[in-house]
Amino acid sequence: MSRERVAALRSGMKEHALDALVVSSLANIRYLTGFSGSNALAVVTAGKAFLITDSRYALQSAEEVRGFRRIIGRRGLLGDAAARGALRGCRTAGFESDSLTYAQYRSLRKLFSGVRFKPAPGIVEALARIKDPQEVADIAEAAAISDRVFSGVLGLLRPGMTEREIASEISRLNVGLGSESDAFDIIVASGPRGALPHARPTDRRIRKGDFVLLDFGSTIRGYCSDMTRTLAVGNAPRRLREAYRAVREANESAVAAARGGMKARDLDAVARGSIRRSGFGRYFVHSLGHGIGLRVHESPRVSPLSREVMESGNVITIEPGIYIPGSGGVRIEDDVLLGPGGCRILTKSPRELIVL
Amino acid sequence: MSRERVAALRSGMKEHALDALVVSSLANIRYLTGFSGSNALAVVTAGKAFLITDSRYALQSAEEVRGFRRIIGRRGLLGDAAARGALRGCRTAGFESDSLTYAQYRSLRKLFSGVRFKPAPGIVEALARIKDPQEVADIAEAAAISDRVFSGVLGLLRPGMTEREIASEISRLNVGLGSESDAFDIIVASGPRGALPHARPTDRRIRKGDFVLLDFGSTIRGYCSDMTRTLAVGNAPRRLREAYRAVREANESAVAAARGGMKARDLDAVARGSIRRSGFGRYFVHSLGHGIGLRVHESPRVSPLSREVMESGNVITIEPGIYIPGSGGVRIEDDVLLGPGGCRILTKSPRELIVL
Repeated sequence: MSRERVAALRSGMKEHALDALVVSSLANIRYLTGFSGSNALAVVTAGKAFLITDSRYALQSAEEVRGFRRIIGRRGLLGDAAARGALRGCRTAGFESDSLTYAQYRSLRKLFSGVRFKPAPGIVEALARIKDPQEVADIAEAAAISDRVFSGVLGLLRPGMTEREIASEISRLNVGLGSESDAFDIIVASGPRGALPHARPTDRRIRKGDFVLLDFGSTIRGYCSDMTRTLAVGNAPRRLREAYRAVREANESAVAAARGGMKARDLDAVARGSIRRSGFGRYFVHSLGHGIGLRVHESPRVSPLSREVMESGNVITIEPGIYIPGSGGVRIEDDVLLGPGGCRILTKSPRELIVL
Repeated sequence: MSRERVAALRSGMKEHALDALVVSSLANIRYLTGFSGSNALAVVTAGKAFLITDSRYALQSAEEVRGFRRIIGRRGLLGDAAARGALRGCRTAGFESDSLTYAQYRSLRKLFSGVRFKPAPGIVEALARIKDPQEVADIAEAAAISDRVFSGVLGLLRPGMTEREIASEISRLNVGLGSESDAFDIIVASGPRGALPHARPTDRRIRKGDFVLLDFGSTIRGYCSDMTRTLAVGNAPRRLREAYRAVREANESAVAAARGGMKARDLDAVARGSIRRSGFGRYFVHSLGHGIGLRVHESPRVSPLSREVMESGNVITIEPGIYIPGSGGVRIEDDVLLGPGGCRILTKSPRELIVL
């Protein structure tokens, strides 16, 4: 796995006329090397591949990393790479300008004074975007766990619980059902708080008449799922039920349209047009979705501003939403795998409005 | 609060001869503005202060932010800042070179072509390092919750449970006892896995004779605690019990020595010397500790390489550890508030070896 990915990366480096790539994004490092720790750097040249980390990770990196020379250093990652001559013989090296900080860039320049450095963002991301069968299986397994978590939540959610209690139950179910961890901070947003797309769970108690928005994800071997469902607790206001119908229609029309080879912004436009026609256009305040993999958010970005073309093998979220200040919010989010003629839905939970 | 902090920041800017500071670290943005979302930028000039975020956070930022003009944009944060003339009249602006990526730096240069940009790392960090009474109270409250979580875990941990089940219980107790969230990914490392300082919880089941290392934290209003305890389940090997004694002595000698005005590396040396004299010197593979606040890891770094002088009002961790490959690990970690004549221990759980 690691070997094929490094070979593909070397082809990418050649296309960009680079003798080496300095990989600083931790997700990209995990993708290439298998290393899952929190402090590392990878350097790939035409003939060599290094993984640099610190002594806390000596054993873990030995367990996880294949096909890379490991450097366990103590001079800081860039200093250790320099001390071991990781860029020896390289004239032009790329670096990940979207993750390398300005301060690290200055260190690179200083430590490797004979090398010309070029910003080279997105090379590993372009490889990682197209999932191989094992990666698809991992995301599908994570999505299946999230589905089971959702079923479990339906069995225990009731008026009087706080948002935080519900988030805690989601987390407990998630790990109990086999997720390595929560893929991101769980969102539980009830009643008017549903109008905050990224609300943190609070001590607000669920009341009859609330819409409750649940957004959470699971991870398997580092691969993430990401799903949202919105429930009604008792009789919710008519306007919110209409918003629900509009979001559901937008979700379904986007799922029906999604396929590899399509421009990301065209898919966004399908859902956005659907919501606009329902009269809620100004309440859909975010993008339709995003790629998902070792990162919860990765390329392609499915937004009106995106210039990306989605490919078969991309896994993306489709998550239209409506947020009405003072009233509440609705979002329905699925993970889908794009293929040449359509998409495969990995999130199987029902999309109908469930009234508890 | 926000007003005093911005005033202190402006003094710092003056010392560095800066007309403005572009603040890109999310923890620093939260410290200055109160905003807790995941996408934002702050710009502070002599006369103005802007918080720029996107439409997902329109309501949340209105709830949280005081004393800053809010810009809810759609051109990307830097683009929105430029469109609103956030640096108008500024000749020299600092930026946070430890968090701004190289790509963002290039955008800054392009969008604000008349402004001279200077790397200015650590200005907000230097303010945030000295905690005010409310911040100390928040960290102390988070530490008290972690203590109660630890008591709860003692009541339920038993042989046969997996590391992941224990991590899940820690998380559930944490939120149930009032933590906003887990402060970081919980570490539960049992038996030989204890030798990995940053182990992720696995499906390994606890056996009699294991040492079990638990590292977790709580958050209150964003402020973190961070504690580690190591338990014995039944009769553990003598060498591990000796390691425990050595770590405990190192912890206690460092706690006895810690005070404001001390060099961070001198405090590290107290614990490191203690462990060396116990004969385990080569197994203490990380720094003694780190500052803690809105970030789990912040300045000062308490390591042999640190050049920082710790100040009264700093809250740091003291966490010596011994990691013996193939055998297991021990770490005892407390949060302490430094004062002029010593330190106040915020983590109150017992440091004696508990045998379950």
